[in-house]
Amino acid sequence: MDFEYSARTRALRERLDAFMAEHVYPAERRYFEEVAADRWGPPPILEELKQRAKAAQLWNLFLPDSDHGAGLTNVEYAPLCEVMGRVHFSSQIFNCSAPDTGNIETLIRYGSKSQNARWLPKLLDGETRSAFAMTEPEVASSDATNIRSTIVRDGDDYVVNGHKWWISGVGDRNCELIIFLGVSNAEAPKHNRHSMILIPRNAPGVEVIRPLTVFGYDDAPHGHMEMVFDNVRVPAENMLLGEGRGFEIAQGRLGPGRIHHCMRLIGLAERCLELMCRRVKSRIAFGRPIGEQSVTLERIAEARILIDQARLLIMKAAWMMDTVGNKVARTEIAMIKVAAPNMACKVIDWAIQAHGAAGLSEDFILANYYAHARKLRFADGPDEVHRNQIGRLELAKYEAA
Amino acid sequence: MDFEYSARTRALRERLDAFMAEHVYPAERRYFEEVAADRWGPPPILEELKQRAKAAQLWNLFLPDSDHGAGLTNVEYAPLCEVMGRVHFSSQIFNCSAPDTGNIETLIRYGSKSQNARWLPKLLDGETRSAFAMTEPEVASSDATNIRSTIVRDGDDYVVNGHKWWISGVGDRNCELIIFLGVSNAEAPKHNRHSMILIPRNAPGVEVIRPLTVFGYDDAPHGHMEMVFDNVRVPAENMLLGEGRGFEIAQGRLGPGRIHHCMRLIGLAERCLELMCRRVKSRIAFGRPIGEQSVTLERIAEARILIDQARLLIMKAAWMMDTVGNKVARTEIAMIKVAAPNMACKVIDWAIQAHGAAGLSEDFILANYYAHARKLRFADGPDEVHRNQIGRLELAKYEAA
Amino acid sequence: MDFEYSARTRALRERLDAFMAEHVYPAERRYFEEVAADRWGPPPILEELKQRAKAAQLWNLFLPDSDHGAGLTNVEYAPLCEVMGRVHFSSQIFNCSAPDTGNIETLIRYGSKSQNARWLPKLLDGETRSAFAMTEPEVASSDATNIRSTIVRDGDDYVVNGHKWWISGVGDRNCELIIFLGVSNAEAPKHNRHSMILIPRNAPGVEVIRPLTVFGYDDAPHGHMEMVFDNVRVPAENMLLGEGRGFEIAQGRLGPGRIHHCMRLIGLAERCLELMCRRVKSRIAFGRPIGEQSVTLERIAEARILIDQARLLIMKAAWMMDTVGNKVARTEIAMIKVAAPNMACKVIDWAIQAHGAAGLSEDFILANYYAHARKLRFADGPDEVHRNQIGRLELAKYEAA
Amino acid sequence: MDFEYSARTRALRERLDAFMAEHVYPAERRYFEEVAADRWGPPPILEELKQRAKAAQLWNLFLPDSDHGAGLTNVEYAPLCEVMGRVHFSSQIFNCSAPDTGNIETLIRYGSKSQNARWLPKLLDGETRSAFAMTEPEVASSDATNIRSTIVRDGDDYVVNGHKWWISGVGDRNCELIIFLGVSNAEAPKHNRHSMILIPRNAPGVEVIRPLTVFGYDDAPHGHMEMVFDNVRVPAENMLLGEGRGFEIAQGRLGPGRIHHCMRLIGLAERCLELMCRRVKSRIAFGRPIGEQSVTLERIAEARILIDQARLLIMKAAWMMDTVGNKVARTEIAMIKVAAPNMACKVIDWAIQAHGAAGLSEDFILANYYAHARKLRFADGPDEVHRNQIGRLELAKYEAA
Repeated sequence: MDFEYSARTRALRERLDAFMAEHVYPAERRYFEEVAADRWGPPPILEELKQRAKAAQLWNLFLPDSDHGAGLTNVEYAPLCEVMGRVHFSSQIFNCSAPDTGNIETLIRYGSKSQNARWLPKLLDGETRSAFAMTEPEVASSDATNIRSTIVRDGDDYVVNGHKWWISGVGDRNCELIIFLGVSNAEAPKHNRHSMILIPRNAPGVEVIRPLTVFGYDDAPHGHMEMVFDNVRVPAENMLLGEGRGFEIAQGRLGPGRIHHCMRLIGLAERCLELMCRRVKSRIAFGRPIGEQSVTLERIAEARILIDQARLLIMKAAWMMDTVGNKVARTEIAMIKVAAPNMACKVIDWAIQAHGAAGLSEDFILANYYAHARKLRFADGPDEVHRNQIGRLELAKYEAA
Repeated sequence: MDFEYSARTRALRERLDAFMAEHVYPAERRYFEEVAADRWGPPPILEELKQRAKAAQLWNLFLPDSDHGAGLTNVEYAPLCEVMGRVHFSSQIFNCSAPDTGNIETLIRYGSKSQNARWLPKLLDGETRSAFAMTEPEVASSDATNIRSTIVRDGDDYVVNGHKWWISGVGDRNCELIIFLGVSNAEAPKHNRHSMILIPRNAPGVEVIRPLTVFGYDDAPHGHMEMVFDNVRVPAENMLLGEGRGFEIAQGRLGPGRIHHCMRLIGLAERCLELMCRRVKSRIAFGRPIGEQSVTLERIAEARILIDQARLLIMKAAWMMDTVGNKVARTEIAMIKVAAPNMACKVIDWAIQAHGAAGLSEDFILANYYAHARKLRFADGPDEVHRNQIGRLELAKYEAA
Repeated sequence: MDFEYSARTRALRERLDAFMAEHVYPAERRYFEEVAADRWGPPPILEELKQRAKAAQLWNLFLPDSDHGAGLTNVEYAPLCEVMGRVHFSSQIFNCSAPDTGNIETLIRYGSKSQNARWLPKLLDGETRSAFAMTEPEVASSDATNIRSTIVRDGDDYVVNGHKWWISGVGDRNCELIIFLGVSNAEAPKHNRHSMILIPRNAPGVEVIRPLTVFGYDDAPHGHMEMVFDNVRVPAENMLLGEGRGFEIAQGRLGPGRIHHCMRLIGLAERCLELMCRRVKSRIAFGRPIGEQSVTLERIAEARILIDQARLLIMKAAWMMDTVGNKVARTEIAMIKVAAPNMACKVIDWAIQAHGAAGLSEDFILANYYAHARKLRFADGPDEVHRNQIGRLELAKYEAA
Repeated sequence: MDFEYSARTRALRERLDAFMAEHVYPAERRYFEEVAADRWGPPPILEELKQRAKAAQLWNLFLPDSDHGAGLTNVEYAPLCEVMGRVHFSSQIFNCSAPDTGNIETLIRYGSKSQNARWLPKLLDGETRSAFAMTEPEVASSDATNIRSTIVRDGDDYVVNGHKWWISGVGDRNCELIIFLGVSNAEAPKHNRHSMILIPRNAPGVEVIRPLTVFGYDDAPHGHMEMVFDNVRVPAENMLLGEGRGFEIAQGRLGPGRIHHCMRLIGLAERCLELMCRRVKSRIAFGRPIGEQSVTLERIAEARILIDQARLLIMKAAWMMDTVGNKVARTEIAMIKVAAPNMACKVIDWAIQAHGAAGLSEDFILANYYAHARKLRFADGPDEVHRNQIGRLELAKYEAA
């Protein structure tokens, strides 16, 4: 047993930390100001920092494929996600942000040569962004069999129809590609009914209805969009892997994204705990620093315990994915999905409390980050779905007995 | 012991319920649309509904003084707050919204004849609004001795200087009056240092810097403002009650506002629980309504218990205020300040969870109402300050022993 | 609305408080010593105090029937339960302890003249005790349709067979009567299958197998017994009310018992909070009293809030029982069943924590009282059953809509 | 990073698992029966199993010193503690039980040749047991500077006086040695005032006053004793390491014991979760197994998450002790002290709830194990002391800034 990160990870983390300290933390305010001025374009500071990151060879770190990326395992990459998670927009600086990471991996693993020739280079270069269209408003889409959108073959084309929402990243003017999940073979067995297909953002019939908000935040320019796909026609060659293989692809892309999200939440929580500590050391109430109150010390201690425990669980899930694969690791992958966002919500809420009402305002990142962590209790299905699954897997251990 | 509301309250509540059903719930969407179109003016629908409420004699219900208002006791009025709390902007419809209610009461109780002649009629008529400027950004103002703003006599005037924030209601274009708390007698004994003074919103030197946000909401047109008072000069007659009597006035206005806020939170929580119930009855996941899952039933049950317990505690606090006065009731008043917003946050969070990600968006009022309830854990001082006070009062019972 | 107890209750409470102070608190140690010396007989101190209570006319206070008892309503009697709950054995002193109270009420309401002539006088006089045999080990008896014991007519007799446990009070050597619930008409509609029958403790075939423990406590001399009823033969006239009417009787006895239990838990929690307060005022750690730590103050404050809220909810349930009856009050009766023991467990656990390891020992009543409160999360069915019911009743409000 | 246990640990664990399955689980009932029959002697089954364990070379596994024991690191030994923790008395079978392990390590590390010649062989052989006398009733002994017992030089002897309690293991008739902590140099600097001295259990003046109970359990034959040391005279050579070096020794023995306790709690919690799972699969209520209720599945899922997170945190603390030492690992050692018993209490409480009232009785180990886990929230100081320390260490990170 060894809890030390690999030499490679330690070196990368050091460089990443240095980059964050030199370039990212000081740019936070400018980022928000530029977004306020031009809500749906990538803010200039982001493009500037992307060039710096590329120059510093902190680019596409997420890719296990060493031809295109850093060639890191999940265990090696996860600690870098934590660092990036400290500033919510920073993973984009390193071309490591969702949903592009999942989409790029999907293309590399399942895309045809011509599909990849068309879409990959610009995505890998950070020139364009992409989106993943799965969730639908009318149904509980944590149960994927509820999905209603259709992908129908018509001559050399497919015609796509559907109503989707919470489509993240499509707000960005640079978004050019949407990977779309829909029903292609309604009569097939349950797990062969769905397909994934590539849809250019500017295809006729692709329409953004509105950005959705999360606690009042629209998360521009990234955005979470409600969209309609109205008789969108794409060439048959845009089908990914083959008709009816949508579930297969969905399974494949699941695990790593969870690790990334969860480790970014660790970084988020650490950042908020740091803000809390700095605040309570300096803030005086009734004659002494809040940080000397035992109730504050208790919360800091609990935060430290919760964060460290969650990090270890995520790292173990990553290690299992690397060593025994997603399928065996499915309990662990479900567990971190429940543990990490709940942990982050608790820690951030304490940090907010330590800041007084200011903690709810835009003067600190805390309320914004709380909204983000709260949202992740729904991404990929609400807590309840995952707890049910974990519970069932636990009970199954006693099946034979 | 009698848990029945008085006949008067029951009759008013019935009329209020009917008014809400007929006029307010159906106008919710229009309210938000009008605010989106013109952020800082009172939306036309509000003015329209105010006229209707006046016509229905559902106006100034909060006023214990029967010359100007309904002449209800706290116990009689509190259940009406619950009804109004179901829609966050509705208390304004009945001219019962904070901080105007507290300001009007302050004027009636402590204002001079000429002060009241100038300000009261338009406030009582709902023509203008008012604000209360106490909280300051640089200090923990839950400890009022930290307040730094100054009110200095200069000939026939007072000159006011200070940096304030979280000044609610000043966003509204109809706001004409600010009651300002500052230090007038720095050398006086601790509780005689502060004064309250009346400042016209349009006095030179009164400047709004920005609206603050709570999570991502600016609560327009009400608003929570950061403000600067830069050498604001007002005639000496604007002083309330007399120099150095700020604390005395602050004490006097404290109790009823707490009751109102807390009972509105009851209404808020009831409304969100209703939304939750309706949702889980209709929403199907994995083949059956979410509402048949025991985990959902448990949360609904806990919500019902939490709400009913909190309501009873608030009503008891109201009853004590009516029968033995604010001072004796100070433990109860502190207790509801802790209990009600925490209860509401829990209930609303469960309601959000039952709605899936949609519960975080603007399609439901839930996230907005969560933000409101969360903010009330800071208003009049954070939970911690009140819990400390309650704990100390409890320990004091064993002093003699 | 009126939160004041009636004059009658206040007067009785004052006398009860005085009696507790003069006679009961000082006798606590002696009680435990006498029980240690003779585990299954009523300790002499108890018999002595019963005579005193009778002399003080603090006797049979629970009986709504003013012929035999105090003739108090639920609202009037409940606050007396709180006082008695402060010392776990004290309700017996006033002939107000479970399960005798429920059994006496059952007899008065449903017993025949001859049944009552035989059993009531000695029970009302406190000379004998009684038990209620319902719960069975093999099944989840919170679902009463699971009950398997049988009551079979055989000539002029009934023959009773069954395996029961958690039969409280039967440990006491003075216990002479058992009210037994079993299936008499297996083929009848679900709610007409069961009967209640009176069984003398010394009838042949009635056997105590062992006392059960709760966290290591056997609660002697009261005791929670596992019992076998092996072909116990009783005369047909021992049937209560009539064959197949067991459920009807069970419903009738339900509500008041809940109020009593829950209000005693309020007293229990108040007592433990008092112990906690006294402890933290005097106990020094790291240079100052634990009671000055904000984490201690927070817990005391939360305890005060939890206790006061639970008391109000119970009193409201009692008031509803008095005014609209058990059936309409069934949500409230279910709510207090969940709220009160959970509240007590939390408060007592904090009190234990404030005492250090000593809080777990027999030097304080805390661990014993925790065990008692924890057990009450199972009595009459576990929390989960009641929360499910409350949740369903809440959802039913939206049925028509 | 590597989450796999070492080959050596895996092999030992397999053998230990097999031993438990073959010999220990089947002997549980017999153990309790024998203890009931002879409360303060080691039950015959225990002695029998000790011989088997010795024969199976599963003996003294805890000893890092490979001359006397298995020579395992903390990381290697900790997973074996988990297995032993599944049955509360089983670590004694393998001569791995507290406080003997700590005492043996203390002797090996700090004992003189003659001290060790006298005491070690029989302890290592499992022939005798030992105790550690530190905690005192009159003071908050989590703050060690409060300790009042005295060790005074008198010619060639030391004279020991003191009132101690919670002295575990001294109940056992085989206990022959007590390591005693007291003040020897009251005027010395704070950390040089205390000494540890070896006291034979049968020395004149050593008196057991009573066994203390935890909830209602006296944990016989192990026992937690209140003791008086009344002018106990021992030869000067019984002083450990030297006068005034008590703290130094106390520090040294701290870390490993924590790891052992905490990993045993993991085993305890796993065992209780297993019981819970088996129960809910078979127990039917309202027509279906409790295990299909989502509220049950949620608790099982949360239990799985809590247990796995706590285990990882403990293993990391063990790894840090092995690689960077107790001092650097002090935050982690404090964290597991808080996390593990609280986790265990939660998990066991859910397991109890799933068993109905039976879960509180002696028919299951659950209530007994809850009592044990609850007690460990006090051992080595209550949670609050450790949370304060963790909080302070966290704040200290921002000192320079």
